Amino acid sequence: MGDFCPVPVEEKHGEFLKTVIEILFKNVVFTTRQDKVILWIPPDKLEEQFDFSLTQNGEDHEKLLLLLKNTIKFSVKTGHPYFINQLFSGLDPYGLAGQWLTDALNSSVYTYEVAPVFTLMETHIIREVCRMIGPQWSDGMFCPGGSFGNGTAINLARFNLCPDIKKKGNNYEQRLVMFTSEECHYSIYKFASFVGIGEENVIPAAVDDKGQIISSDLEMKIKQQKDNGAVPFLVVATLGTTVRGAFDPINEIADICRNHGVWLHVDAAWGGGLIFSQKHRAKLNGMERADSVVINPHKLLAVPQQCSLLLVRDEGLLRGAHSKGAEYLFQKDKHYDKSYDPGDKYLQCGRKCDVFKFWFMWKAKGSSGFANHIDALMKTAESFEKQIRNRPEFMMVSDRQYMNVCFWYLPRYLRGKSNISEYAPQLHKVAPEIRAVMIKHGSVMLGYQPLKSLPNFFRFVSQNSSLNQKDVDFILDHIAEIGDSLFP
Amino acid sequence: MGDFCPVPVEEKHGEFLKTVIEILFKNVVFTTRQDKVILWIPPDKLEEQFDFSLTQNGEDHEKLLLLLKNTIKFSVKTGHPYFINQLFSGLDPYGLAGQWLTDALNSSVYTYEVAPVFTLMETHIIREVCRMIGPQWSDGMFCPGGSFGNGTAINLARFNLCPDIKKKGNNYEQRLVMFTSEECHYSIYKFASFVGIGEENVIPAAVDDKGQIISSDLEMKIKQQKDNGAVPFLVVATLGTTVRGAFDPINEIADICRNHGVWLHVDAAWGGGLIFSQKHRAKLNGMERADSVVINPHKLLAVPQQCSLLLVRDEGLLRGAHSKGAEYLFQKDKHYDKSYDPGDKYLQCGRKCDVFKFWFMWKAKGSSGFANHIDALMKTAESFEKQIRNRPEFMMVSDRQYMNVCFWYLPRYLRGKSNISEYAPQLHKVAPEIRAVMIKHGSVMLGYQPLKSLPNFFRFVSQNSSLNQKDVDFILDHIAEIGDSLFP
Repeated sequence: MGDFCPVPVEEKHGEFLKTVIEILFKNVVFTTRQDKVILWIPPDKLEEQFDFSLTQNGEDHEKLLLLLKNTIKFSVKTGHPYFINQLFSGLDPYGLAGQWLTDALNSSVYTYEVAPVFTLMETHIIREVCRMIGPQWSDGMFCPGGSFGNGTAINLARFNLCPDIKKKGNNYEQRLVMFTSEECHYSIYKFASFVGIGEENVIPAAVDDKGQIISSDLEMKIKQQKDNGAVPFLVVATLGTTVRGAFDPINEIADICRNHGVWLHVDAAWGGGLIFSQKHRAKLNGMERADSVVINPHKLLAVPQQCSLLLVRDEGLLRGAHSKGAEYLFQKDKHYDKSYDPGDKYLQCGRKCDVFKFWFMWKAKGSSGFANHIDALMKTAESFEKQIRNRPEFMMVSDRQYMNVCFWYLPRYLRGKSNISEYAPQLHKVAPEIRAVMIKHGSVMLGYQPLKSLPNFFRFVSQNSSLNQKDVDFILDHIAEIGDSLFP
Repeated sequence: MGDFCPVPVEEKHGEFLKTVIEILFKNVVFTTRQDKVILWIPPDKLEEQFDFSLTQNGEDHEKLLLLLKNTIKFSVKTGHPYFINQLFSGLDPYGLAGQWLTDALNSSVYTYEVAPVFTLMETHIIREVCRMIGPQWSDGMFCPGGSFGNGTAINLARFNLCPDIKKKGNNYEQRLVMFTSEECHYSIYKFASFVGIGEENVIPAAVDDKGQIISSDLEMKIKQQKDNGAVPFLVVATLGTTVRGAFDPINEIADICRNHGVWLHVDAAWGGGLIFSQKHRAKLNGMERADSVVINPHKLLAVPQQCSLLLVRDEGLLRGAHSKGAEYLFQKDKHYDKSYDPGDKYLQCGRKCDVFKFWFMWKAKGSSGFANHIDALMKTAESFEKQIRNRPEFMMVSDRQYMNVCFWYLPRYLRGKSNISEYAPQLHKVAPEIRAVMIKHGSVMLGYQPLKSLPNFFRFVSQNSSLNQKDVDFILDHIAEIGDSLFP
């Protein structure tokens, strides 16, 4: 690129890339429990310590390697077993190999001719996942995250009700309304606004004490809206809610949707990976009765960021709702059957290949490998819950249904008390304070949040199947120790 | 992951990853002119020759490495100098290093605490690109591609007109209409449908013989729509159209937008990279008068897939239009200033880090490196055009304005004729047939398309600055040779 160099460019670049790989192997890929999860520095201090500046002239390789090392140093090690902060974690070596290959090929997956292997691979993965859901499932697409998948489903449901909206816009005579759980993912609201439905037309159904939709409340609200002259067109149920890991009663909800002629979308971004586990698959029963489903392999299955699938039952739907037929990409006189070009059923044009890493992991482990991964995770979650129930300094927020274990650490003065709720303002401060200490130590990254009137609580959740019983003990002892020193 | 192995898992995985890297170095990263761009196989044959199957049990490392090699073998080498098929190409070693690091860290960029370096890096890049656009520009976001960025801008324009639509939905009393070039990117229509505007409410303005919007036609259509009772809310202008590389007259359009109180969005996905070139920056003059701009560094600047930016002038706008405030991510009682968390201004939740590769390339080359890259590309395009004009077997479709050189290969019987358009049906078949031969040879991947009544023509376009004068000669000789044998 116009740089002056005494050795051939390729040789110079080859040496550089090899050094980069060595640094990655040494400092990121094989993180161990002895490493810190995070080297905490507040934003203003990081601004001082890291050279973010963008300048006229480039830097030499030595400086670039230093910047690389600093990037690693100050970044969170999401592959560390004690990164239990989000619905993703772990670093699978086959997934990583798949990513690295994907990057080297730098494809965009819109036509067969530009991405022959990856377009067919997408078809195989989509077909296989559809088969695993149910016999009538037939199509799907890869999405840049579950939020976008949920948003796409909202538009599909609307298109199904009234295909004319694609052309005419959402100036429907009557108000369109959709329904979801009051504990749904926030993307439902964001995308309801984005697609022109409006967040006030998203009606939340009440949940029970485990966080599952109460079907009777949902049906009552659908009727209410109809009585008010609105047109219900969609129910979004969740299999594996973000905070509590709740599973909505899909069969009951599917009955309601059928009776009222309403589209059923299932947000199984977090729970859907269970489809691989013979032991726990039953939690998804009824999912096959939905019209669309989102599953994020980058969550439960630990596929690298990002890998998200939107699956649909109706075969022509994606093309019907999204096609535009740009002739510079999808020429009519191609030298091969252009039904192999997936691009026109997508909303994205250029699209990074997200299939290969997933396919490669599947090849490496087989379906049984994913099943073992899930079963090991579930055992860890069970053991975590058991400890919470056995130790007086901890308390469950609600019954565990999945990987999510939601719990409070109780300062001494609250242990054994039956009227915890009266101390909500005090309890609310406990989790953030303990967490701040853990982050500053760099020892454990564990999320917390409030939920409606419930004061802040911790959410344990792992997708890293190398986490074992000893780790569970360590994490809980660690929280207890910090809690004890902060709230003596 | 539960596999039985006599050597420690890490060692086994380490060896495997090292072998993968060796394969990538040998077969993809340093593609040369001696390699084929594509090993063409029709879809049904590839199905036979490649093992796509997904099975219960995993494969051993030997088989996995073979699958990797086959994936490379049958994939298009987009880094090859003769991949001139799309608005992306080339494989930058610093960009690749950046991607590989990004993958190893496997971050999701929603909060400072989970992605300290990357969140601040995004802020720095956005701030710097805003500064390069104009003094009043202040905010932006990374998007999964230019289509999504354009779609987001449509919603921003609507939100700006009527913030209530976020809550109430698009049941606006009057019909909302938007305007664009008849040669705009198709994402404008796709997302107009998606966000609930409807593709019939996208009014195309006529273009001149170079493909630039005719301002008077645009203004006339805005007035027409107003007279019909519709509410114009957005004009999308393009700087660098997909096919012809046309630059709409931004200053004239900005005047019209100001007079009619309409939002101006500029789709500079393809042209926006020129912002780095002192020599060619003037093509973007007037862009600073827009309200929002999309620039894709993964196009002109050869940043690896994907890297796309949506920039806006108004500081609070992204948060205003997109925020929802999910408390499990954006807790109110964080131990740091949560204004550093970018997540709530985004529509995506989990989001792959796209900033690092761009930032790292910028560090490696400096702004001047990007400028050299652009200037070299423009020289190649100039030289390509010159040859087209000099050789009797080729003909320009319209004047070149940018990197895109649109041209016909003329069979002997058409050379020197002034009434080419009478032979449109015959000429229409020429480019696809020549291209099919090139693809089967695996020699050159060069795109073609029709445009309105114009018969199929080739579009030369490169983002790979290693393409030189000899390559231009080779490509044109190659086309001429094939043309000559097909149409003697």
